Amino acid sequence: MRTLEIESLDFEKGGGLIPVVVQDYRSLRVLTLAYVNREALKRTVETGYAHYFRRSKGKVMMKGETSGNVQRVLDILIDCDQDALIFIVEQKGVACHLGEETCFHNRLKGAESLKERGRTEILKKPPEEEHGHS
Amino acid sequence: MRTLEIESLDFEKGGGLIPVVVQDYRSLRVLTLAYVNREALKRTVETGYAHYFRRSKGKVMMKGETSGNVQRVLDILIDCDQDALIFIVEQKGVACHLGEETCFHNRLKGAESLKERGRTEILKKPPEEEHGHS
Repeated sequence: MRTLEIESLDFEKGGGLIPVVVQDYRSLRVLTLAYVNREALKRTVETGYAHYFRRSKGKVMMKGETSGNVQRVLDILIDCDQDALIFIVEQKGVACHLGEETCFHNRLKGAESLKERGRTEILKKPPEEEHGHS
Repeated sequence: MRTLEIESLDFEKGGGLIPVVVQDYRSLRVLTLAYVNREALKRTVETGYAHYFRRSKGKVMMKGETSGNVQRVLDILIDCDQDALIFIVEQKGVACHLGEETCFHNRLKGAESLKERGRTEILKKPPEEEHGHS
């Protein structure tokens, strides 16, 4: 794994913002998708707590600043194009402002059949190609 | 979990595109961050294989169309603001065009110390608050 400087990140592509996948360090569940500008990322590294650029408010805020549901950041990963990040976090309380553990608590209509189709295909494979599935 | 129609998604906020967190169904590793427009999402649901709007090419393409590293989509989750998605996928081959399992194979400089700081804090907690960690 390579180590990259903050200066190598591509903030320009997203108009000054980079999307951040926020993932729980223990369950590996994706908690939310947020955005950082340079300032939010610098504050995150400095404090060890997730800071995001809140598009609806137009400013940098510490996650949990008002709710107390802060995110202790344990790792920051960068993708191959340097235009997306992962924060590995320890979430205090819940991530979603609606009280759910993760913000991703809705399913797209039609997705149930994808699951069934996919499972059928995976099960059909010869044993040497078969993958574990839950 | 609520089921939502494609029409309820907020494509406008991102200029016609919605970011997609692509997560391996088995390892739960985040493989990549990609983007869909309405057409890419519809084709994904219809075919069961991930289609993205490739910003660098300016068009919808099936993931793995040229490399063969296709993604069988098993589930599609939507966040609370309807402006971000998760595709749960079975990845054929590797996700990254550089030959890595995941596109997130770089670390931000300074992140190692976050991990150490975070672990120290988690270990310091009284036992009833302690979380599992690896």
